[in-house]
Amino acid sequence: MPDVNPVHLIAHKRDGQSLDPDDIRAFINAYTAGDVPDYQMSAFLMATYLNGLDDAEAAALTDAMLHSGRVLDLSDLSGTKVDKHSTGGVGDKVSLILAPVVAACGVPVPMISGRGLGHTGGTLDKLESIPGFRTDLSIETYRQQLEDIGLVLIGQTAEMAPADRKLYALRDVTATVESIPLIAASIMSKKLAEGIDALVLDVKCGRGAFMKTEKDARKLAETLTAIGEKNGTPTTALMTRMDVPLGRAVGNWPEVAESIECLRGEHDDSELMEVTIGLAGEMLALGGVADSPEEGREQARASVADGSALDTFRTLVETQDGDPTVIDDPSSRPGSEPVAEVVAPDSLHGTITDIDALAIGFAAVDLGAGRRTKEDTVDPTAGLVFERRVGDQVKPGDVLARLYAKDESRVPAAQEAIADAFTAGDEAPESTSAILDRYTRNGWLHGTNA
Amino acid sequence: MPDVNPVHLIAHKRDGQSLDPDDIRAFINAYTAGDVPDYQMSAFLMATYLNGLDDAEAAALTDAMLHSGRVLDLSDLSGTKVDKHSTGGVGDKVSLILAPVVAACGVPVPMISGRGLGHTGGTLDKLESIPGFRTDLSIETYRQQLEDIGLVLIGQTAEMAPADRKLYALRDVTATVESIPLIAASIMSKKLAEGIDALVLDVKCGRGAFMKTEKDARKLAETLTAIGEKNGTPTTALMTRMDVPLGRAVGNWPEVAESIECLRGEHDDSELMEVTIGLAGEMLALGGVADSPEEGREQARASVADGSALDTFRTLVETQDGDPTVIDDPSSRPGSEPVAEVVAPDSLHGTITDIDALAIGFAAVDLGAGRRTKEDTVDPTAGLVFERRVGDQVKPGDVLARLYAKDESRVPAAQEAIADAFTAGDEAPESTSAILDRYTRNGWLHGTNA
Repeated sequence: MPDVNPVHLIAHKRDGQSLDPDDIRAFINAYTAGDVPDYQMSAFLMATYLNGLDDAEAAALTDAMLHSGRVLDLSDLSGTKVDKHSTGGVGDKVSLILAPVVAACGVPVPMISGRGLGHTGGTLDKLESIPGFRTDLSIETYRQQLEDIGLVLIGQTAEMAPADRKLYALRDVTATVESIPLIAASIMSKKLAEGIDALVLDVKCGRGAFMKTEKDARKLAETLTAIGEKNGTPTTALMTRMDVPLGRAVGNWPEVAESIECLRGEHDDSELMEVTIGLAGEMLALGGVADSPEEGREQARASVADGSALDTFRTLVETQDGDPTVIDDPSSRPGSEPVAEVVAPDSLHGTITDIDALAIGFAAVDLGAGRRTKEDTVDPTAGLVFERRVGDQVKPGDVLARLYAKDESRVPAAQEAIADAFTAGDEAPESTSAILDRYTRNGWLHGTNA
Repeated sequence: MPDVNPVHLIAHKRDGQSLDPDDIRAFINAYTAGDVPDYQMSAFLMATYLNGLDDAEAAALTDAMLHSGRVLDLSDLSGTKVDKHSTGGVGDKVSLILAPVVAACGVPVPMISGRGLGHTGGTLDKLESIPGFRTDLSIETYRQQLEDIGLVLIGQTAEMAPADRKLYALRDVTATVESIPLIAASIMSKKLAEGIDALVLDVKCGRGAFMKTEKDARKLAETLTAIGEKNGTPTTALMTRMDVPLGRAVGNWPEVAESIECLRGEHDDSELMEVTIGLAGEMLALGGVADSPEEGREQARASVADGSALDTFRTLVETQDGDPTVIDDPSSRPGSEPVAEVVAPDSLHGTITDIDALAIGFAAVDLGAGRRTKEDTVDPTAGLVFERRVGDQVKPGDVLARLYAKDESRVPAAQEAIADAFTAGDEAPESTSAILDRYTRNGWLHGTNA
């Protein structure tokens, strides 16, 4: 039996009261142990969704979820271990570029990643599109590899934060996913279990993100960093734009191929690299190898220019049993040939002003790049690569994108959806930074809460 | 699989939207069939608790719960069948007096009752304190008895409104009991399944009721009558005071004994009889034997004065296998002797201004008259009888109440709690009507919403 009366705890949150952190811990512990049934937890989750959690409650929830399983201790390994987490976007392959860049600069990166969720992709699915790549390393191998090559990328293990897995599955079927404190506790319980010394967050904001508004994204960033600081883990957040897809490719292997191009220095001026280098600067500063984020960004750019970041990525792939020949020549991977094109309809001419990231995300899922139900398997090479981006000129008949899919029956609907996602007009859109703001324990750099 | 997507339905209610009545029906049907799990229903219940249901939604919920099981058809039996339902109070033995009064006046009363809930008693527990009395009649016996003697009092059967039983058990453990639309749907689904032609509601209001405020009680009365009217069942509600216990006795057999005294005409001027006769007037008017509630009250009083109501009660007891000798001489029932007294403490002198019904309700439960957990068995003779009521003079050492309990270890705590429930002062409290207001399809008689 739990120490806490579940009905009283639910009733207090229902009535908008603040809960005792110890009661939250006891409730989560009892739930993880199976002493509190799903139907009581789902009533609590809905009350929390509607009435919120304050910072102390969110920290206690995270702490209980974090300690529901194994918490890694990497303190005997050398270096300041820093990880990055993104709240998820369309075309967001930042981790694939960022992790080798930061590791190449001398900051160890122990990264435990998730799978695609809804319309967004997941780093784990992307890595597994590299033939042979294993993400199911043991904790012992994980530690050893981090010490040996300064970089390791795996999936969440059953031992870590089991309460989060149980809670996430329940939230998914009870309409309680989109709650800022619940999202924050889920993210931070998994990240803090990695044994990291510091954390950088990429909080996506916009139509293609889970946080649609700046207000929600700011609130999430504040909640996440407050939890990190309360745990003694320095945490910095960048708020970045997610209205249009990030980069040219959407889909697992297409995004790996684009990441390799980025690591080769082929897209240095892109929005994708702006975000990647921005995050790398924060990580290198937190990791103690740069004196400031600015200096960190310089180091990051240098690691791309001198090829050391690409070398680190190749080493990572080889070490985790992936086939390095597809890194050296991405076009050699079976499934790298497009099966169809999307052409601009008659209505599309002028300058492209917008590409709806949410629509593109769902179109990629429909092509096989993501899961419509939990039981779906992912087609590793499915997806699309844009031939036209925002700001480009377009006229009817132009090729907008090339499609990849094993199951060609999925192509026609995707062609229509992708063409519909484009908007064009007479005036070129204003060019703005992809990084909207930066939040640390001292507040926002540019935002109203600074 | 249900026709409705449970996650979408939950999300709509979570976001405060009105639901399609057909979707509510499909959702409840799927839940009753086991296709929607408890954890989804409890998320829906919490969203409903916090965001409410409008009249159309509440009617659809009731309708689905009503048709989840057998709905009796008594239309082939003679007379206009009218029942009463009380939202529950402390010392509320009205049904025991009212049902035989109304039946004696010629309106058939098919009454399906519940057990005690929380600090309040239940008619079923009270009837079962009569040695031999059976409440588990078959539906066939129920129909026959109603035709033969115009009165039948049984417990809810497994066939009727099974969705309500399942939902009620879930609400009890998920802090979603005290929701006006959920309470209303629960009450009305059970009552409408009885096959009645009209219904009178006693909506209790005050400290000892589930509705603590006039505002909540009015809202519940309005929701209940709206559901009744939508179902084509004329429904009238009286809002009655429940700040102090109703009548002199609290506990199952003690309340039966007091009811017999009332049927003998010994408490005609009491608040208990004011409420009983008020409700009887409404039932007799709805039942078509009186032209108005006023005329109905006259008939009701006459049935007490001429002994026909008591005769009807005795016939009911005999027909349902109860021992009629304890009706003729209540003191002959074993357990009818008090085991202790509550005496006025030194602080209590002057005029009694208040007796806290909620505290008395819990003290009676603690003496054994109710259940603290579902597994508890009820002590049929446990309870208390007041020797002093509001308005009486009191001085330290006076006997305030006499206690009944098989388990005398429970007495000392009850003595203290009961003494503490009394307040005395220098000025006599204002005498007010126990009936606060009356609501029909045309609105409130005295209230602001009339």
